[in-house]
Amino acid sequence: MEKYSVVFLPDDIKVEVDAGISLLEAARQAGIHVKSTCGGKGTCGKCTVKVTEGKISGGQGNIPKDLKEQGYILACNAMVESDLSVEIPMEFRLHEHQVFLDDQQEGIVSEGKLDILGDFPLNALAKKISLELPPPTLTENASDYARLITELKKHMATERLTVSNAVLKTLPDILRAGDWKITVTIADLEEGQEIVRVTSGQDDAPAYGVAIDVGTTTIAVTLIDLSSGAVVARQGTYNRQADFGDDVITRIVYADENNGTEKLQQVVMETINDLLNKIFEEQDISMEEIPVAVVAGNTTMSQLFLGISPKYIRLEPYIPAASQYPIVKAKDLGLSINPEGMVLSFPAVASYVGGDIVSGTLVAEVAKHEELTLFVDIGTNGEMVLGNQDWLMCCACSAGPAFEGGGIAYGMRAMAGAIERVAIDKETYHVAYKTIGDTPPVGICGSGLIDCLSKLREAGIIDRSGKMQDLDIPGIKRGDDGPEFILAFAAESGIDQDIVITESDIKNLIRAKGAIFAGVRIMLSMADMPIEAIDKILIAGGFGNYLNVPDSVRIGLLPDLPAEKYEFIGNSSLKGAQLALLSKEAFRYAEEIGRSMTYLELSIGNAFMDEYVSALFLPHTDFSLFPSVQI
Amino acid sequence: MEKYSVVFLPDDIKVEVDAGISLLEAARQAGIHVKSTCGGKGTCGKCTVKVTEGKISGGQGNIPKDLKEQGYILACNAMVESDLSVEIPMEFRLHEHQVFLDDQQEGIVSEGKLDILGDFPLNALAKKISLELPPPTLTENASDYARLITELKKHMATERLTVSNAVLKTLPDILRAGDWKITVTIADLEEGQEIVRVTSGQDDAPAYGVAIDVGTTTIAVTLIDLSSGAVVARQGTYNRQADFGDDVITRIVYADENNGTEKLQQVVMETINDLLNKIFEEQDISMEEIPVAVVAGNTTMSQLFLGISPKYIRLEPYIPAASQYPIVKAKDLGLSINPEGMVLSFPAVASYVGGDIVSGTLVAEVAKHEELTLFVDIGTNGEMVLGNQDWLMCCACSAGPAFEGGGIAYGMRAMAGAIERVAIDKETYHVAYKTIGDTPPVGICGSGLIDCLSKLREAGIIDRSGKMQDLDIPGIKRGDDGPEFILAFAAESGIDQDIVITESDIKNLIRAKGAIFAGVRIMLSMADMPIEAIDKILIAGGFGNYLNVPDSVRIGLLPDLPAEKYEFIGNSSLKGAQLALLSKEAFRYAEEIGRSMTYLELSIGNAFMDEYVSALFLPHTDFSLFPSVQI
Ligand code: FES
Ligand SMILES: [Mg+2]
Ligand SMILES: [Mg+2]
Repeated sequence: MEKYSVVFLPDDIKVEVDAGISLLEAARQAGIHVKSTCGGKGTCGKCTVKVTEGKISGGQGNIPKDLKEQGYILACNAMVESDLSVEIPMEFRLHEHQVFLDDQQEGIVSEGKLDILGDFPLNALAKKISLELPPPTLTENASDYARLITELKKHMATERLTVSNAVLKTLPDILRAGDWKITVTIADLEEGQEIVRVTSGQDDAPAYGVAIDVGTTTIAVTLIDLSSGAVVARQGTYNRQADFGDDVITRIVYADENNGTEKLQQVVMETINDLLNKIFEEQDISMEEIPVAVVAGNTTMSQLFLGISPKYIRLEPYIPAASQYPIVKAKDLGLSINPEGMVLSFPAVASYVGGDIVSGTLVAEVAKHEELTLFVDIGTNGEMVLGNQDWLMCCACSAGPAFEGGGIAYGMRAMAGAIERVAIDKETYHVAYKTIGDTPPVGICGSGLIDCLSKLREAGIIDRSGKMQDLDIPGIKRGDDGPEFILAFAAESGIDQDIVITESDIKNLIRAKGAIFAGVRIMLSMADMPIEAIDKILIAGGFGNYLNVPDSVRIGLLPDLPAEKYEFIGNSSLKGAQLALLSKEAFRYAEEIGRSMTYLELSIGNAFMDEYVSALFLPHTDFSLFPSVQI
Repeated sequence: MEKYSVVFLPDDIKVEVDAGISLLEAARQAGIHVKSTCGGKGTCGKCTVKVTEGKISGGQGNIPKDLKEQGYILACNAMVESDLSVEIPMEFRLHEHQVFLDDQQEGIVSEGKLDILGDFPLNALAKKISLELPPPTLTENASDYARLITELKKHMATERLTVSNAVLKTLPDILRAGDWKITVTIADLEEGQEIVRVTSGQDDAPAYGVAIDVGTTTIAVTLIDLSSGAVVARQGTYNRQADFGDDVITRIVYADENNGTEKLQQVVMETINDLLNKIFEEQDISMEEIPVAVVAGNTTMSQLFLGISPKYIRLEPYIPAASQYPIVKAKDLGLSINPEGMVLSFPAVASYVGGDIVSGTLVAEVAKHEELTLFVDIGTNGEMVLGNQDWLMCCACSAGPAFEGGGIAYGMRAMAGAIERVAIDKETYHVAYKTIGDTPPVGICGSGLIDCLSKLREAGIIDRSGKMQDLDIPGIKRGDDGPEFILAFAAESGIDQDIVITESDIKNLIRAKGAIFAGVRIMLSMADMPIEAIDKILIAGGFGNYLNVPDSVRIGLLPDLPAEKYEFIGNSSLKGAQLALLSKEAFRYAEEIGRSMTYLELSIGNAFMDEYVSALFLPHTDFSLFPSVQI
């Protein structure tokens, strides 16, 4: 196979690649992660790059006109035909290390008790016990393992205690090296205990556990001290699976068409392991010290994490492989904790309501109180749970990627340079905005888009259906596909282009908010309850922290209820995983939640479609549902 | 590294090897297994070969004088220095495919019931169940695994049912390929059930299990139909670990000094897998069809099978790593059954009374009756159990390899050409013998040696201490190290040499029989019982089938009790493994046996040594112990 060298600029990273591979694949091999929302099908137009030297073939497709004029091509279908120099503007790359980590989580221990535990007892999924064994003699000649068990039984209940062969192999030397003083680390699960590690001598470090939230977009990991419950360290980053498509459907297609399940599993494991290794380095501990991990993710993410093909998730009747997942040894997954460590996954309810939602429902205590609680996780899919201590129902509506910046001309994730707040003067139509990190704007993120939609409507720039009005103001220009409203002019933007919101962006946003509100309405109608019956609305997701409630209500995304009923609970999926690490009972309870939740399949019948169509207005076709909103 | 080619004759097998490796290693690489009783230390003189072309260095050591004169060298310390031709006479090789397989085992099903089960219920360690699942719909949208479980619960109790991630991965496609008709194979253990395999469609083949006896010398494997209990196929061969030494001690030393535990595990696994593959080919089944294996072996063999260093077994106070072994997945061992299949090992009592003895004690029903039973497994170690339904004790005495032909000038294992019966005319001293396979004699095996010792004594050729008498008969000649008695003259032998028994051979045999009888005496004295209290003597071991009771009594190997109290039970270790496969209760009972047996450590105090010294006579210094023997 002929080889060519490709230099990526501005980083000046050089790789040798096989002739004929795509530039997207070459970038991956160089360790540069380029946006590819459609998973390399040439349709999303996100993977634009510029070849400054050398010869490629292909590269054409859905490229924004202005970029095309500047000589940009699509990396996903451009093939390497010679040595190349390729420029990838920073704004077309997936940045690492910029993932929002929920600050409210600092120290879940407060006032001397573990707030997160609620009513659950502290009964962690792993413990460490130091033992001193009586040395064997010719007459007291029980085997090494029997000797260990005899002593261990004095310190804990050991029903169904096991040891793996791998750990047993290490035992004889370790016992003698430590002069019969040892420390035993035990995974203490509902299903039984297993000795995961034995070390010589007595060591005082706590038993640790790792909580992992595997989101479609971002992955967050925390290291938990299982004796105190403290969050010792946290790390987050983008899920590198995004190289293979932004949303779960694109990834399922990739997994299915390319025999890619294994590849996607490997990539998510690499992403997680990099975070873990950072934590281990920072904390100066070794992966062997981690006997247990709890993972929460949506059903597709959970199946890919375990290497189970997600194929049937997207085929009617949308059946997941399992609702409760097996406990898997870390070594069988390639997860960087103790190879014999136990990896538990939160159970799923259905193909589109997964372990992340069960985890969130657990930690949000939806099923613990009398009050009616609505729990909403807004992401590419809007997943929601409605219920109280007596009943629980859930559903998922495909909101599309708009709130994560997908399918939006200048949409981007919540990272530096993203417009997150917008104000529009109703007289002058002058736009004021705020960006994350207060740097020049390079795009607009979810919360900025909601703000924008609300303010455009308030200023009368768009009508109730989202159509842009024929106003003669400098902010409105005519783009390739219709009118566009300029949020930031090229001169002030960080990318030498106007940052605009198009009419088609607005339609996408209306569809997204309509889907979510329709889901809420369907659940309420199934429960035969009015909106006012909701006592509490919990908003989860990294996104949730930026969300402006009045604006969200004004566009008809969220129910028109007083602000005090709303609570942002941040990354509840991760918090639930932390809770499960600290309490066997909590994890068991999560399994109960998973089993007892009624899943509403919205694709049955016309009810959802009717609600959805009614919600494709600002705020809604039925104004009476939004009494507080000035029409 | 320089390479040389070595051709082995008479097979004419050529290998490329690194310069400087030993000829023994070169032979191994060629797949030729050369005897190496001492494990390649240059002391046993068994690995003799002849270099016919090329240059070696070294090769000197303990070589029998006549072989030395014929130009033989030691393969274990001769290093390859050029291209070579090397001749390995057949008699110095370990032959495969000649292992004695216990014929009495044919069809353990007889008269419509499973004789082997005794009082145990048929409740096998694995089962197959065919299911037809209702296909999912949008409203009946339980996950694939939940759907499977719902149906399975109608057919069996599923307390603590698990599935491995590997099997779960296969489930979605298999369910759909078989149009929701499937066959599930379940390992049904005391510890819980695990789904080991799911296949599309309904298949009528039985669930199979594999019983494995891992002996130091030989390995035997049977394939069991778990629904009928029938032995479907059997195979046996030499344990290829013998390349690294004949007895457990040599192997422990090899494992310890050469970091060789992994190597020895690999070699035993290869030996077993070759047998299994032969069976699978013969029966036209695949390894995936085997969900469970039960393994019995002595403690060293069990630890090496699991890859656990046996180092401390030979260091005082002789502590094994474990008495109950973990259940291990086949994939973690490299055993050729279903990778997710469960491998159970019989528990050990102590470092020198292992799972093979527990297995034998189980199947021999030693602990089930009122009668006092003595169970003896005669091999390199003599292991014995004494007891009844109320109590059990056991001990092990190092008999040395004499009864397996080790340490005996022309000793060999029970294979074609081995002298197995000897008669000596008391007048003429003429020797009549019978060989296995009725081929010209090439050596003498254990039963032949016992016969020989008894007949030499009867004819007055040796005295009570084993010393050869100064008789002027053609049968006695003077060898390198003293007088020798010729059993077969060169002219009639198959190796162009006289086959003799030396005075030193006789001493070795007396020491071996003395050790075993001393063990019996110690156990009886601990129980405060006379020899006559023994109601039943069970003799196990491949060797046991050739053993002549009157001769064994006459030399003082076995207690002087009427022949009708004796019973040969063949390879009881293998039979116990078969029983355990068929009955969970039997395996659990074996664990009880292991725990409840009192182990007598013979190295404590002088009692054993005193008994041993008294037993170094023919039959014994205390004639009253052998009233039936004509002195
Ligand atoms: S002398 Fe070579 S193996 Fe024993
Ligand atoms: Mg999430
Ligand atoms: Mg044996």
